[in-house]
Order: sequence, then structure tokens, then C-alpha cells
Amino acid sequence: MIIAEATKTAQDSGGSPIDDLHALVESDMAATDRLIHERMGSTVGLIPDLTRHLVDSGGKRLRPLLTLAAARACGHTRGMHVHLAAAVEFIHTATLLHDDVVDASTLRRGKLAANMVWGNKPSVLVGDFLLSRAFQLMVETSDLRVLHILASASAIIAEGEVLQLRSANNLATTEADYLLIVGAKTAALFAASAESGATVADADPAQIGAFKSFGQNLGVAFQLIDDALDYSGRQALMGKSVGDDFREAKVTLPVILAYSRGDSDARRFWQRTIQLGQQRDGDLQRAISYIEQTGAIDQAREQAQRYARQACRAIQLLPQSALRDALIAVAEFCVRRGY
Amino acid sequence: MIIAEATKTAQDSGGSPIDDLHALVESDMAATDRLIHERMGSTVGLIPDLTRHLVDSGGKRLRPLLTLAAARACGHTRGMHVHLAAAVEFIHTATLLHDDVVDASTLRRGKLAANMVWGNKPSVLVGDFLLSRAFQLMVETSDLRVLHILASASAIIAEGEVLQLRSANNLATTEADYLLIVGAKTAALFAASAESGATVADADPAQIGAFKSFGQNLGVAFQLIDDALDYSGRQALMGKSVGDDFREAKVTLPVILAYSRGDSDARRFWQRTIQLGQQRDGDLQRAISYIEQTGAIDQAREQAQRYARQACRAIQLLPQSALRDALIAVAEFCVRRGY
Repeated sequence: MIIAEATKTAQDSGGSPIDDLHALVESDMAATDRLIHERMGSTVGLIPDLTRHLVDSGGKRLRPLLTLAAARACGHTRGMHVHLAAAVEFIHTATLLHDDVVDASTLRRGKLAANMVWGNKPSVLVGDFLLSRAFQLMVETSDLRVLHILASASAIIAEGEVLQLRSANNLATTEADYLLIVGAKTAALFAASAESGATVADADPAQIGAFKSFGQNLGVAFQLIDDALDYSGRQALMGKSVGDDFREAKVTLPVILAYSRGDSDARRFWQRTIQLGQQRDGDLQRAISYIEQTGAIDQAREQAQRYARQACRAIQLLPQSALRDALIAVAEFCVRRGY
Repeated sequence: MIIAEATKTAQDSGGSPIDDLHALVESDMAATDRLIHERMGSTVGLIPDLTRHLVDSGGKRLRPLLTLAAARACGHTRGMHVHLAAAVEFIHTATLLHDDVVDASTLRRGKLAANMVWGNKPSVLVGDFLLSRAFQLMVETSDLRVLHILASASAIIAEGEVLQLRSANNLATTEADYLLIVGAKTAALFAASAESGATVADADPAQIGAFKSFGQNLGVAFQLIDDALDYSGRQALMGKSVGDDFREAKVTLPVILAYSRGDSDARRFWQRTIQLGQQRDGDLQRAISYIEQTGAIDQAREQAQRYARQACRAIQLLPQSALRDALIAVAEFCVRRGY
């Protein structure tokens, strides 16, 4: 019911629900962008050059949006939410830089990945610089509660990234393992973004918990869809190279489902391409076909929708507001997007 | 005079001045080691395995020593200096992990570097994990002053690392450029280690400034010697592969001096091996010989001694104490060490 309403709102406005949410926190987001550009500055010119490549490449700014929306929905007026929003975007950007080195990615948001333009070394070091800039921004809030939230989230994200590395090439990875990885590497920052926004607004514990749960569930839903799209044949629309996860032999939910449901031919295919990492021309098409045959994409989407509903339920208990409804619309949109 | 006294103390005790300083903060250092081992824990087994490889490899723990000694010298009794000491060691360890990936190092402290054992990917991600653990430990002190100090230091360190990357293969790097890099990539953490120790002890601004200056100058002196030793032919004693900087075409002070003072043959040699990175068998020996001919090592040592004296002068104004004198002895020792 909530989801049906949200869909309607998004259709009415003509833009995506993410655009609608942007519009509701427009001046905060403009202040966040100014702060991001100010703090990515350095006398070492390579740092802003490389950072700008990512920061100005049309990312959706979902995490800072969560922070700003949660803070405003909880009545924050002082302005420290802008520092937090810039900090979570820097953490996210640093993670992208390090991920692209780890995955040897070639494209990011439709452009050459930074590691392809400048090499791996600057990507590692500029990622470290952005983490330290995030750290500085958080400290400037002088709010130890949000420092605790974001420090814990940082550790969980890094653990999730290492776990993901260990699950590559490993067809023994279970759906539960996968959800643990996604909950850590992606959802922990979504959760901390929303939770820290509500916290800096001095919201009561129930409200803070609601925003944390919203972020956590939205993060899992978001990643489930991302991983499904990597095998949907529509990935080119995302500006990412198609079949990234397959080439990197990542064991995401579509692979887990297609492997467990496959016949002996399919299982041999997955063992060769994922477990042994031996891939040849045409394998990606064959992988997509196996995944489609087993209904794995549909099941991943259903799973994502369950998480999105959980996210919506978490904030449904809060007083009605345009921001709350816009967040609900975003959650619904994230699981039906085709890009 | 101070330096002469310190030398005597170190000789008397039979151990190195670093051992003497360890002995003065023995129980604090034991608590720091316990905290380090506790916090490097994770359910993701690769994280403690890889971290242990570095943490238990016989590092001198110089940075936590500075924190503990500064805090104790300023009368700290509450115990938060142990959290800070563990945090600065984690920051240092994370930097080593990322450095070894960036430099493609093969050895670290006489063992295979972590990137050689586990690969680059876990080294990048476990480095990120340790940075987040450091962040958590610092937040647990609930002391916004030390959070500001260490957040700023982290950004300066990362900037220094990027600067160093830009100076590789670049014979136009000046002595001033080099000192800027060393001041950032190495000395900033030495300075922050000592400054945060004094700060958490609620020392007065003059004392805090004295410890910060001690750390900063000691850090520069330490790195000057490290870089000189890489061409001294005694480097094998350090457990590092000999000629690391040369192979990575880093433009350190010995190279800057040998290039600027070299005849046309020498300059052509440096242009080929450093600027163009074209190296062949026998080149390291030839580099060492050019550097020795131009007295570059002696001058680097003299430069280091000037910084060490500056470090000693900074804390000489503080009330006499065994800790103060032990720190002075460490500064003197760091510039005469042969390993």
C-alpha cells in the first residue's frame, strides 16, 4: 500500500523518486556539494584531479541524501548534517577507488575507472586521503555519537570487502554468506548514513533505530538489484561494463541460485568459469542464459523487494512528512529500477 | 652535551636507547600490545592473519612509544594513552600495507611482504580495516582534541604519499621538495603520536608544542637515515631488500645530492636509471659508488643530526625526568643507527 502510493508520487512528478528526494533537500545538497569540492582540495594537484573524476561523474549521492533527509525529517536545523553528508560521500568514494583497484575495473559510471587513467597507486593513496578527509569532517561535528556510528560502520565495511574477496571463485558460498557480505560492504554505510543524520538531529532512540533499519534494508535491496542487473543484459545502461561480476568470478545471488538449481551441464559451466575462473568468448551470454532459465533474476528481485518493504515499514511508524514519503518512494524505486 | 649524556646512558644499560625507553613504559606498552591484538581480531580470519604478519614481525613500536612516553611525561594516569598508542600503530601498519602494494615491495622487516604472501587485494582492504580500527580506538578516548590532531595527521600523511609518488622518476625534485614529502609522509605521524599523548594528559600548550616539535623533527631525522641506509650497503641488516628506493626510482636525498654534484657520466647514469627507470645488473652498485663519491650519505647524516638536535632542543625545556632523557637518547640513537 505504501509502495503503491510511492510509485504514484514518483510518476506524478515526472522525475525519479531520487530526483524528488533531491528536490526536498536541495539547498542542503548544494551545501554538501560545495563542502565536498572544498575538502577534496589539496596543494597536491593529483588529489583533486582524481577525486573530481569520480565526484563529478554523476553519482546519485544516495548516501548523503539519506543523511540529509534523516536529519531534516528529525527536525535538524544546525547544519552539521552537511558535514556528515560530505563525510559519507567521501567514504563511499574512497571505497569505490579501492574497489576498482581490487577488482581491476575498467569502467566506473560510464567513464574509464580512475585506476585505468592514473594507475593503481594514486587510486590507493587518494582513497586513503579521502578517508582521512571524511574523518576530519566527522570530527568537526564534535558529536561523539556520530563518530562512534561511522567508525563502527567503517570497520564493518572493510570486513565485508575482505569477506567478498574470500567468496570470489567459491561456489560453496551460500545465500546466507552472500547476504552477510552485502549487509556489511554496502548496507552498513547506508545504515550509518541515515542513523548518523537522525542522531545529529537529536532524534529519540526509536526514530534513530527506524532510520538505521531503513538504511540497512535499503542498502541490501539496492545491492541485490545491482548484482541482478549485472546479469540482466541491461547493465550497459548503468554505464558499467557488462558482466563485471562474472569476469571477476564474484559469487553473487544470481550465480548461487543458478548453480544450486542447475543441471549437471550448468554446474560444470559454473565450476569452470567461476570456481576455476577459466572463461572464454560467449561464456557471459551462456551465464545470462543459465541464470534466466533458473528464474534467478526474478528471485533476486523478489528478495530485494522484501528488503525494500522492510525498509519502508521501519519508517512508516514515523510521523507523516514529505521527506518520509519521498524516502519510501526511493526504496520502492531502487528495487524496480532497470539501471 | 645532551646528546653526549644520552649516548652514555644507552651504553651503560647495555641495550639500545629504544629498549631503555620501552623499559620505562613497559606496562603501558604491554597493555598497548594486548589492545592491538584484541582489536585486530575479526570473524574474518584473513584479517588477523595478515595483520599478525606485520604486527608481530618485530617492529620497533616507535610511534606508540612516543605516545606513551609523552603522556606519562606529562603526568597522564587515566589510561586513554594506551588507546591512542594502539591507534597510531594501526595507522602505521595500514600505511605499510598500502605502501608495499604501491611500491610492489617483496620484503618487509626481513619477511615476505604481505602483498607477496596474500596478494595486493587483501593488503589494500586489510589496510582499510586497520584504519577504521584506529578510528574506533581514537573515538573511544572521547577526546575531540586528539581526534582533531590525528585526523589532520592522516590527511597530511596521505598527501605526502601522493607527493612521493609524483616525485618518483623525477630528477627535478629538490631537497626542499624531498623534505616536504618526508615531513608529511613520515614525520606527521611521529608528531601526532607525541602531540596526542601530551594532549590526552592535559599538558599545557607549551608542553604539547614541545612534544609535537620533538616528534616532527625526530620523524624527519628518522626518514633521512632510513633513506641514506638504503644506499649504505648495510641495508641487508635492516631486514629490508637492499636498494629498494633505487629500484622504485624514488628520488631521495642521496640521489638528489649525487645527481646535483655528479659529472656528466654520473648525471647520464641517474637520468637512465631514475628518470627513465631503465636499470640493469650492476646499476645498484654503481649508484652506491656515485653516492659515496659525492659524500651524499655523510651530508644526509649531518642533515639528520641537525633535525635530531632540533628534536632534543624542543623537549630540553621540559622538567628533567627519566622519560625526557630517554626520548633524547632515542633521538640521538636514531641518527647514528646502522640499521
